[in-house]
Amino acid sequence: MKRSIATVCLSGTLDEKLDAASSAGFDGIELFEADLINSPLSPSQVRGLAEDLGLSIDLYQPFRDFEAMPEPDFRRAEAKFDVMEALGAPTMLVCSNVSPHAIDDDALAAAQLHELASRAHARGLKIAYEALAWGRHVSEYDHAWRIVEQADHPALGTCLDSFHILSRGTSLDTIDAIPGEKIFFLQLADAPYLRMDVLQWSRHYRCFPGQGALDVAGFVQRVLATGYSGPLSLEVFNDVFRQADPCRTAVDAMRSLIVLQDALPEPAKLDGFAFVELAVDSPETEDLLRAMGFAHVGPHRTKPVQLFEHGDIRVVLNHEGSDPEVVAIAVASADPDASAARAEALLAHRVERRRGTGEADLTAVAAPDGTAVFFCGPDWINDFLPTGEGGGEGVPIERIDHITLAQPFEAFDEAGLFYRSVLDLQPSDAAEFAAPDGLVRSRAYASGDVRVVLNVPALASTRDRTELQHVAFSCADALATARAMRERGVPLLAVPENYYDDLEARLEIDTAPLRELGVLYDRTPEGELLHFYTARLGGRVFFEVLERRGGYRGYGALNSPVRMAAQRGGVAEPVT
Amino acid sequence: MKRSIATVCLSGTLDEKLDAASSAGFDGIELFEADLINSPLSPSQVRGLAEDLGLSIDLYQPFRDFEAMPEPDFRRAEAKFDVMEALGAPTMLVCSNVSPHAIDDDALAAAQLHELASRAHARGLKIAYEALAWGRHVSEYDHAWRIVEQADHPALGTCLDSFHILSRGTSLDTIDAIPGEKIFFLQLADAPYLRMDVLQWSRHYRCFPGQGALDVAGFVQRVLATGYSGPLSLEVFNDVFRQADPCRTAVDAMRSLIVLQDALPEPAKLDGFAFVELAVDSPETEDLLRAMGFAHVGPHRTKPVQLFEHGDIRVVLNHEGSDPEVVAIAVASADPDASAARAEALLAHRVERRRGTGEADLTAVAAPDGTAVFFCGPDWINDFLPTGEGGGEGVPIERIDHITLAQPFEAFDEAGLFYRSVLDLQPSDAAEFAAPDGLVRSRAYASGDVRVVLNVPALASTRDRTELQHVAFSCADALATARAMRERGVPLLAVPENYYDDLEARLEIDTAPLRELGVLYDRTPEGELLHFYTARLGGRVFFEVLERRGGYRGYGALNSPVRMAAQRGGVAEPVT
Repeated sequence: MKRSIATVCLSGTLDEKLDAASSAGFDGIELFEADLINSPLSPSQVRGLAEDLGLSIDLYQPFRDFEAMPEPDFRRAEAKFDVMEALGAPTMLVCSNVSPHAIDDDALAAAQLHELASRAHARGLKIAYEALAWGRHVSEYDHAWRIVEQADHPALGTCLDSFHILSRGTSLDTIDAIPGEKIFFLQLADAPYLRMDVLQWSRHYRCFPGQGALDVAGFVQRVLATGYSGPLSLEVFNDVFRQADPCRTAVDAMRSLIVLQDALPEPAKLDGFAFVELAVDSPETEDLLRAMGFAHVGPHRTKPVQLFEHGDIRVVLNHEGSDPEVVAIAVASADPDASAARAEALLAHRVERRRGTGEADLTAVAAPDGTAVFFCGPDWINDFLPTGEGGGEGVPIERIDHITLAQPFEAFDEAGLFYRSVLDLQPSDAAEFAAPDGLVRSRAYASGDVRVVLNVPALASTRDRTELQHVAFSCADALATARAMRERGVPLLAVPENYYDDLEARLEIDTAPLRELGVLYDRTPEGELLHFYTARLGGRVFFEVLERRGGYRGYGALNSPVRMAAQRGGVAEPVT
Repeated sequence: MKRSIATVCLSGTLDEKLDAASSAGFDGIELFEADLINSPLSPSQVRGLAEDLGLSIDLYQPFRDFEAMPEPDFRRAEAKFDVMEALGAPTMLVCSNVSPHAIDDDALAAAQLHELASRAHARGLKIAYEALAWGRHVSEYDHAWRIVEQADHPALGTCLDSFHILSRGTSLDTIDAIPGEKIFFLQLADAPYLRMDVLQWSRHYRCFPGQGALDVAGFVQRVLATGYSGPLSLEVFNDVFRQADPCRTAVDAMRSLIVLQDALPEPAKLDGFAFVELAVDSPETEDLLRAMGFAHVGPHRTKPVQLFEHGDIRVVLNHEGSDPEVVAIAVASADPDASAARAEALLAHRVERRRGTGEADLTAVAAPDGTAVFFCGPDWINDFLPTGEGGGEGVPIERIDHITLAQPFEAFDEAGLFYRSVLDLQPSDAAEFAAPDGLVRSRAYASGDVRVVLNVPALASTRDRTELQHVAFSCADALATARAMRERGVPLLAVPENYYDDLEARLEIDTAPLRELGVLYDRTPEGELLHFYTARLGGRVFFEVLERRGGYRGYGALNSPVRMAAQRGGVAEPVT
């Protein structure tokens, strides 16, 4: 099927939007009227530019407040038909009237739409009538369809928009009754569930399919079953996309359609993290890893990186770095080539790497924030030369539980869809918590032992702010591990006494052992979490150690504020 | 009356919040529980720090989900009483229960609150019971008050919160029936009108009194009439304040209380703008001003600035600048000393200036974005040495209509309250429009001929983005003025033909004269606006010329997107 995108999804001027849509591989666009009005390009120039870029102009939108009026404005419609002819746009979107002058009279609406369709037909154009979720008298798709049926004109059909329909929770059953050829257009958008006025929700918080909470895939299935064969077109009003790089947004958009259509190679089975790579600038991280029980396996054959190992946990240190940060995550794949092929089908950029003779052929792709994602078979470890150093005794950490990455403000939803689709992970609900420097949103993506948590400021800031990353190691006994680490000199994050006082007041548990070791606690109906943190490695990275008891599936987000306040400091010496 | 602020209004760690509150002159704080829990300071250390800073701890808040439970948690309450004793906090805020386990039984709630108050009383503490707007069974202040009456304990009173009450539109009449001594606490917050779930509205979008749309002043009057003599305390949950500089937020907060209490010298009468000062880095601005009909009055006696004049319009160019920007605005005051005294009573920082012998004593204060605001009497102009250059013929602009200043993201509401209060201006409703790089919010503050428009990105961005400023000159005939300027070689902003095509389609007016000259148009029931723009002065500044017809009171925000798209460019050469 053709894939289209509404120009309103993308930031910039109209020519920039068309460039971005074309570069991401879209076949066509919906031209949002304001984008044309604000452009110095004439309609015929836009047509030429779109043709040069391989884009069809599939829809001209929106034509507002037309039907069921005392005096419908055919003059305005004819002027827009002129524009559409110059553009070569075949179909006009007429959205249901929101004017206070609109009359609640389906027969009148149908008659006026019939006349509009006749005039369009005379020019070889078509009209797609859509119910806005906040239309004055027509706000349900089945109501719009009844009016289209009543109007009964070959140049009049309906437009179905996943947001307008799913946001109201309308039954989808009527879709089955609409002949596919009378669905003139299909607009797709997802959205998180928000308890707000549907107009504001629609205008500011839509997102691409797979980034929100609506069942867009199920909706599309219903529509395709009617025989609809027009474009799958994204129409997303989103405050962040409006200011993000349009080329990145367009790729994100295309990825969402690829996932929606499931036009992908099967994902290869993943078996947890093979390694995490940190860029570092000093020997301190090595010292910390050794104190945590890691052994230095050895240097890479040809690259300036060193492998450290602790049981099944592998950390690669890259001495090309400045301040410590996570530069790569690696998953163990049952079929690295298949994983890489899937990633590339999802428009992930391959990270070019030099490969020495006899070295493993590791494929890596770049995540939206620049983190490299490697797909590893079993042989990658042979690229490191063994020093024979031992380690691992006394600090019973077991594996990488999860990796938490701070995202740039504009890349949060994009990164979520990337990790979710490339690594075939399931998203959790988004959490929000108050850090000392502002609200933070957090969302986890997980499957088996691969868990990635993305954090982002709820609002971008004009103030300097360090966004932290961390690697969390699992263990079977957090208290024993904390004790062992403390004995080996690992600097652990100090937790305020007030935290434990509150814990006692709330939960009636014995906090003494937690308090002694700076271990944090969370409890849900499914289980318990005990976890603690190392000090920061100078830059933006720290380590977490956690023990999941019972069926605890979360990430201790409840404790993030106290952790962030402690990391930020602010009081060097307690006041006496 | 005492003035207090809840720590949740301010960003940072607890010690930073206390510092900020103290620096801004607050007498006390409400201690938000999470701020204590996340702090390494013990309760007694917090008490000591607050005492050292001259702050009382007026309220410990919130104690949640207590009353009307099958088994009320007195153990948790006693633990928190311990904390309050160590803090020296006299009163605990109990907010109405939101738990699904809460029972809809006022008598039970009253009995349990009576018992809680007895236990508090035994320790010399008090309980203030408040209805949350989203409480499970108690969501109205008059309902909470009935329960307090029923519980009938001297250590139990109610807490009134302007947001919880005004957001629901509850009648304020019951307030008159509450004895002032039973109002144990008064929390103040304003908010813009938003159509969303009240909990989300409350948690994210509250603002300080005078920044939103609620009648907080009227509410406070009603409460004070009861005899309430406790603190006026601000409790504002706001996503932007959570990440802004806490010291600036605290000053903003204190300013809102000063305005609310109207504890201010009368404003002196203002008679429009005396001048606007631009920092410039090249002779181009001078050339542009001359082309617009300005005469060079002459240099300042001692400072590196030059005065240009056109009838009643005066522009000062400051050659210390880099890229052109507005560095100062000056209002003509009937009593500059009184204006300055009012500004300083509103915590505006005085801008220190060297003053040469015989020069006018101009007082200037700094607005939140750093712009200097001068208060001028009639003699300031004598500081400039006349060159005798003439000008002004042929370009019939008349006065400065308004000045539009882009604000840093975190300073929008702060700047609004600053200009509103310092210059005694009236706010308009906020507008929002889609610029090519993202949504922009805009709000005007005006009185007589002093009009300041503030713009801000609706979301801060991590991308580079130039926020523009402009000075708008009024005229009686925009078409004649545009023609005259074009003839004199003033570079004017080109407006897309598509804009005029749409104008014709929508409004049935003859656009030919507008189209020829690049003049934009807006129409409201009150009147019409014709306006056009010069090209940018290299930096972030441009000029607007506008003609207001009839009672048009707006600023042409409808045309801002096309203006911004044209200013941004993006297509140097039209595609053919």
